Amino acid sequence: MNGCWDYGPLGVELLRNIKEEWWKAMTYRDDVEGLDAAILMHPRVWEASGHVENFTDPMIDCKQCKARFRLDTLTEMISDKNKEKALKEFDSVEGETLDDKFTALLEKPETAQKLLDIINCPQCGNKGAFTQPRKFNLMFKTFLGPVEDSNNVIYLRPETAQGIYVNFLNVANSSRQKLPFGIAQIGKAFRNEINTKNFLFRTREFEQMEMQYFVKPGTDKEFYDYWKDIRIQWFKSLGMTPSKLRFHDHPADKLAHYAKEATDIEYEFPFGWGEIEGIHNRTDYDLSRHQQYSGKSQQYYDDVSKEKYIPYIIETSAGASRSFMAFLIDAYYEEEVKGETRSVLRFHPKLAPIKAAVLPLVNKDGMPEIARKIESDLRPYFKIFYDDKGAIGRRYRRMDEAGTPYCITVDTQTLEDNTVTVRERDSMEQERVSIDKLVAYLQEKLI
Amino acid sequence: MNGCWDYGPLGVELLRNIKEEWWKAMTYRDDVEGLDAAILMHPRVWEASGHVENFTDPMIDCKQCKARFRLDTLTEMISDKNKEKALKEFDSVEGETLDDKFTALLEKPETAQKLLDIINCPQCGNKGAFTQPRKFNLMFKTFLGPVEDSNNVIYLRPETAQGIYVNFLNVANSSRQKLPFGIAQIGKAFRNEINTKNFLFRTREFEQMEMQYFVKPGTDKEFYDYWKDIRIQWFKSLGMTPSKLRFHDHPADKLAHYAKEATDIEYEFPFGWGEIEGIHNRTDYDLSRHQQYSGKSQQYYDDVSKEKYIPYIIETSAGASRSFMAFLIDAYYEEEVKGETRSVLRFHPKLAPIKAAVLPLVNKDGMPEIARKIESDLRPYFKIFYDDKGAIGRRYRRMDEAGTPYCITVDTQTLEDNTVTVRERDSMEQERVSIDKLVAYLQEKLI
Repeated sequence: MNGCWDYGPLGVELLRNIKEEWWKAMTYRDDVEGLDAAILMHPRVWEASGHVENFTDPMIDCKQCKARFRLDTLTEMISDKNKEKALKEFDSVEGETLDDKFTALLEKPETAQKLLDIINCPQCGNKGAFTQPRKFNLMFKTFLGPVEDSNNVIYLRPETAQGIYVNFLNVANSSRQKLPFGIAQIGKAFRNEINTKNFLFRTREFEQMEMQYFVKPGTDKEFYDYWKDIRIQWFKSLGMTPSKLRFHDHPADKLAHYAKEATDIEYEFPFGWGEIEGIHNRTDYDLSRHQQYSGKSQQYYDDVSKEKYIPYIIETSAGASRSFMAFLIDAYYEEEVKGETRSVLRFHPKLAPIKAAVLPLVNKDGMPEIARKIESDLRPYFKIFYDDKGAIGRRYRRMDEAGTPYCITVDTQTLEDNTVTVRERDSMEQERVSIDKLVAYLQEKLI
Repeated sequence: MNGCWDYGPLGVELLRNIKEEWWKAMTYRDDVEGLDAAILMHPRVWEASGHVENFTDPMIDCKQCKARFRLDTLTEMISDKNKEKALKEFDSVEGETLDDKFTALLEKPETAQKLLDIINCPQCGNKGAFTQPRKFNLMFKTFLGPVEDSNNVIYLRPETAQGIYVNFLNVANSSRQKLPFGIAQIGKAFRNEINTKNFLFRTREFEQMEMQYFVKPGTDKEFYDYWKDIRIQWFKSLGMTPSKLRFHDHPADKLAHYAKEATDIEYEFPFGWGEIEGIHNRTDYDLSRHQQYSGKSQQYYDDVSKEKYIPYIIETSAGASRSFMAFLIDAYYEEEVKGETRSVLRFHPKLAPIKAAVLPLVNKDGMPEIARKIESDLRPYFKIFYDDKGAIGRRYRRMDEAGTPYCITVDTQTLEDNTVTVRERDSMEQERVSIDKLVAYLQEKLI
């Protein structure tokens, strides 16, 4: 089964730490409230949002091998040779690169059909075997209750945002927030992608970290710029390489139907630049639609200006799964140390899955007992790993590979003066710390 | 839409805190690893687990009003009068109470049909309108990819446990754990319940906190008892009233097909005792089934005894949503204070949604500025609420209702000596604390 991933023991800690840091950064502030809305929502929500009608991909099938492709990403599936051959059949095509030209032909219905007739299927190699493009809705559907008919169809949410919009007035009233304020949420979303790819980058099940910021119309540009800055700083503050981060502003003719302005925060993955977060000025589109479909006013009463209006929304929509992959890739280094290759994950200490390892130098002379005592003293505060097997150098390397920032070693000197060595992952430097100061030492470094 | 709930700003914090405390208690230990498996799993997993065949409820419909009921919970839907009338039609029925007798008749196919013919529908009141009982599978199903046929059916997981079982050897090998050890996971699960009820108690979408502990056969009883004790202590350690907690052991003739021994930790809700966690000795049933269906050995090599065997599993399966409701209800008190009724949520400080409120006594004389400074100093560590509106007594009461353990008030004396009052929620006692000691003061109380 493609497009669904499990996180193992180290992965789940990294993912949890990313989500925790996002939650603190986004909700430990005066003007943002948290929310956790259900994955299964009333189907009319998705009519109002436009997803039932518009959340579709154009799809084609190969009649020979039954493989299925998204029309809008077909360019990347076709070989350059195949593209070049096809382009010769057209007189003049706009675009600089081969891919630009090919994509331009695919995007126009009048040239797309001819193109599909002359290219070869990327899977089976047969020519002219593609069906006409048709719309495919990306929402997973299921049935509420035991009767499987159209009256009982519900959807797995394809984004967490709508759960926030339908709760907007609930939250505004119960929290006594005034505009501008935001609502933040972390949760799973599902998209029935035709072609999944690049590990966690395009999956069918994924996790989002979204914040919707409700503002007075006219102030939307100001807050759009404000959140762009806050959000890219967040990635940098957790150690992501600044030169591998950039904004990709959506050109006016490519904006989604609800957006006035939109940008992606992109990370340079080994396979190229890819979006890890989208920041959108969604205007009053969503709340207006929910007002229209529900018949319930979504207007906000502004007691400063004494006006009623539907707020504009600035959305910051980060992929938790994509952020996970970006932080993981960004942290990976290989370097020569004493003639050997050291693999190390240089996670920011706040993101590191394991915060510290406790290692008795040898498995005798009372060292394991002291190490176990240290382990149990630190465990209430941090994720700790205990390891007493093998050479100490080998144990350090294993922790480097897991990205553990600190290794605490109990050695002969410990028996004399109750100090241990603390080795820092990146510099590999060691210092001696008194056992009774370890909690405070690590708290200072890690919190 | 019944059976799906959204958590608001305070609710999401309480839920997060419960999950965080569970995660720390269960995975910040040497012998348990964490995991986060996908909600969408391969459909053969659910054939192997027995869910495709057996995860069904017997269901009946009223032919008149189309209402649908679970046969096995019909007893609680029918009025006593209706039950008494029906029982008169039977000669001798086993059971002490009215409900026992009614249930006994429902459970035997030879009496169930007669009973259904003479009772009235709880919704429309019509008599003899029920259909024959039939099986209804409680898994939500959906389709992977664009073709909606039986080859592409997948399920939303009805429990998180199976995600752990299929990862057992992966985790054992990559973490180098030896038996006994456990794998813990928090995540959403879905059941297409026919009748939802009691708010968060029986819902269609809910969250589980599950740990599966893999042990050598023969040691299973020992670890079953060990985890029973650990788990009930966990609820007590977070302040749940001990007299409202009990074990309900499943009698041998009511055990699930996979279980050798099972108990529920029950909480006394206002609607009666209800399960908040199940502890099960699942034997080698699950891993044996996965071995059989996948064709891949699930045997563990024990390098102490030099044997190969399929481990037994002790499961601790807590409902995050049900625990949420139990902690919420358990914390609620009303009491007379100075002639008024005070509503207070006496959450354990670790569970409280907001950890501290910062309140300037009046909105002038520089007090708001000092209060804002305190707020921003505390925010990196704790969820903080700032409130400068209305009388101080009213603000205290609002925080009592939200369960906030500490209120920090900036007053006239603050301007002189840089101290504030810290009011404790339950005792309502106040003490003066120096502003520069506040972080340490709260950390000691809260971490």
